[in-house]
Amino acid sequence: MGRFGPDSDRTAAAVHEKRLWSRLMELATHGAMPDGGVTRLALSEADIDARRLIARWAESLQAEVLADDAGNCFIRYAGRDPELPPVMAGSHIDTVPGGGKFDGAYGVVAALEVIEAMQQAGVRPKRSVEAVIWTNEEGARFSPGQMGAAAFAGTRSVDEILCVKDRDGVRVRDVLPRMLAALPKARMRSLGVPITAFFEAHIEQGPELEAHATQIGVVTGIQGRRSFIVTVLGEAAHGGTARQSERKDALLGAVRIIGALEASVLENESDARLTIGTFSLEPNAPLVVPGCVRFSVDLRHPENATMKRLGDLVPAICARHRGACAVEVVENANAPCAYFGEPMMQFIEAAVDRLQLSRRRIFSLAGHDSREIVKIAPTGMIFVPCKRGLSHSALEEAEPHDLAAGARVLAEVVIAACDA
Amino acid sequence: MGRFGPDSDRTAAAVHEKRLWSRLMELATHGAMPDGGVTRLALSEADIDARRLIARWAESLQAEVLADDAGNCFIRYAGRDPELPPVMAGSHIDTVPGGGKFDGAYGVVAALEVIEAMQQAGVRPKRSVEAVIWTNEEGARFSPGQMGAAAFAGTRSVDEILCVKDRDGVRVRDVLPRMLAALPKARMRSLGVPITAFFEAHIEQGPELEAHATQIGVVTGIQGRRSFIVTVLGEAAHGGTARQSERKDALLGAVRIIGALEASVLENESDARLTIGTFSLEPNAPLVVPGCVRFSVDLRHPENATMKRLGDLVPAICARHRGACAVEVVENANAPCAYFGEPMMQFIEAAVDRLQLSRRRIFSLAGHDSREIVKIAPTGMIFVPCKRGLSHSALEEAEPHDLAAGARVLAEVVIAACDA
Repeated sequence: MGRFGPDSDRTAAAVHEKRLWSRLMELATHGAMPDGGVTRLALSEADIDARRLIARWAESLQAEVLADDAGNCFIRYAGRDPELPPVMAGSHIDTVPGGGKFDGAYGVVAALEVIEAMQQAGVRPKRSVEAVIWTNEEGARFSPGQMGAAAFAGTRSVDEILCVKDRDGVRVRDVLPRMLAALPKARMRSLGVPITAFFEAHIEQGPELEAHATQIGVVTGIQGRRSFIVTVLGEAAHGGTARQSERKDALLGAVRIIGALEASVLENESDARLTIGTFSLEPNAPLVVPGCVRFSVDLRHPENATMKRLGDLVPAICARHRGACAVEVVENANAPCAYFGEPMMQFIEAAVDRLQLSRRRIFSLAGHDSREIVKIAPTGMIFVPCKRGLSHSALEEAEPHDLAAGARVLAEVVIAACDA
Repeated sequence: MGRFGPDSDRTAAAVHEKRLWSRLMELATHGAMPDGGVTRLALSEADIDARRLIARWAESLQAEVLADDAGNCFIRYAGRDPELPPVMAGSHIDTVPGGGKFDGAYGVVAALEVIEAMQQAGVRPKRSVEAVIWTNEEGARFSPGQMGAAAFAGTRSVDEILCVKDRDGVRVRDVLPRMLAALPKARMRSLGVPITAFFEAHIEQGPELEAHATQIGVVTGIQGRRSFIVTVLGEAAHGGTARQSERKDALLGAVRIIGALEASVLENESDARLTIGTFSLEPNAPLVVPGCVRFSVDLRHPENATMKRLGDLVPAICARHRGACAVEVVENANAPCAYFGEPMMQFIEAAVDRLQLSRRRIFSLAGHDSREIVKIAPTGMIFVPCKRGLSHSALEEAEPHDLAAGARVLAEVVIAACDA
């Protein structure tokens, strides 16, 4: 992957804990909620403002801002040989509704910190270093997520992505130009330019590092995921007059289907995760029998074979329990488990050891942009502890010194990879 | 109740089928949906526009517009002795989302038709006649419904009503002044002024008249109703990482509760009606375990004793099936069955017979403003056929000649009651 040496060590040493923390806190003001959480949906005004802030930070560095047709943004510090494929590090800055200050944002701010530390340490590596913001990792507004990374990796076409609609019918195509207009100095670049390696620093979003008092998690892979949109079509009717036996109640149909999904998926598979995260009905009035219900099904399992089997059950269960209603099931994401290569994990472990930090290997149950990028370049993930394992919540928290430690590991591997 | 005679007959004869129909169609343009249905939520712009239209119709008649603090509006044609309590007829013009052209609107337009027919026939009765528009019968925007009629009857305080919020947190108090401002000539009157009698014409919202090829339904009473708002409080968490066994998934909790409600309420009571008409969750994102779910429960049964027993089960069932979540149950409406008096039913039947129309008695399963007004004045309801029994739907339909027949019965009873 590359050679550690004085440049990587000096860059790691120049990582500045307080600067990293204060940038994270400033970023969190965009989309801040009264409870301390953050709602910064992809390509919302808050997301656009946050990108504008990051572009201002880039201006104060010797860095250029670039963007591509999927709305991914890159802060590029040119290396001695700018023709070589760059080393990239980053993550996303969009959040779920009522999310936290660290999920995604930390990976972007840590990558910026590496660029600033490098400059302060007077390090100019052979390859260019780029901090990247991938568009719409969470998929909370435009489903499914990891959209920008998937377009970059070529697993989803940009035309398809541009047509994805949010709940109000707004397409990515309708809002992307606003974001790009907010970055007037950004130079457009092609999707999927070659990269030497990609690194993503992230909070763990689980309790393992904290439980074992370990500073760094070296990620072995990412749990796969299958997700579906289920539409139950009944018939709206008057809640007082329509005879129960003659109703086509889409809500009661959906309730029966979800109960059956829960029983089938979870009863025999303790490692499975089933989340019905969105649920909407029409006409949504107290005295009207719902005519249509739509809900999301998110299914995860750490083994590909079991996840395939469970996912294949979903349409059959929906059909079996639809009762008098019609049902439509659309699979909108099918991402098998991703695994990072052994050389990459050992490379990160060497950096951790060089910095005399404690470490353990962790399999990630949450999805990340790295799941897409590992398909086109050597990729590694660095986890730092997350208090009580709470994430996607206002209670999401991490310690400044843990975040700085993760950024130092990132600095070591990024600079070492630049000499590959 | 009063005496039928030449005045009531001449007024009934002057009812004009085409005028009645074209007024209904014009009213339906306010809130018209592409599928032919109507969405005219209480005190929305569409509702306000519709009231403005009705006030314009009143201007062309020798009629005055009045309003009260609950937003009820009255079109008053003064009798020979204007100090006597008036005879009122009317209904509501708000609809459910995606409702139809006739529910409520017909009762108001039919009452206006009686006033116009009276004037064309040169009839000036002893008592004044008022066509009334009760505020928010449906309860689709501000829950529960029959709000204006309840305030008029004194069963809900106007202060309480003014504080009711819609889903966006908008209170009745915030929008009522807009409606009143749209009727600058309306004279304000007290709530609950004495009335001689109240009559409500309405489509059946059920299939009985159509099935028996009967022109007029004489309503014996109105099914009672208990309604609840259930809040299931869990804990938001990451849909990938949070272990299923440790989740407090508010949606799965709600699904279990609804399944149990369905089983307990419906299995042994074929006459019961259970409707979960509204359902919302937070944060409503595909990858986040829902932390909070709120849904409505509407329960009906034609017998008061059974309805009481079933309603009393609701909080217990919610508590028993809440699992790891907390649950809160608030009863927001408890309206026992209402019964119209035998003299009133015979009075309406005499009018039907006088007009040589066919009739049958019907118990109403849907709620109506009359349920409140019967508490303070002699009240009767006149049903006309409703195609296929479909209501609260774009498919709601009625025949012009059936609607005119109902308006003629209304004219007979209103004018006869004026001489009481």
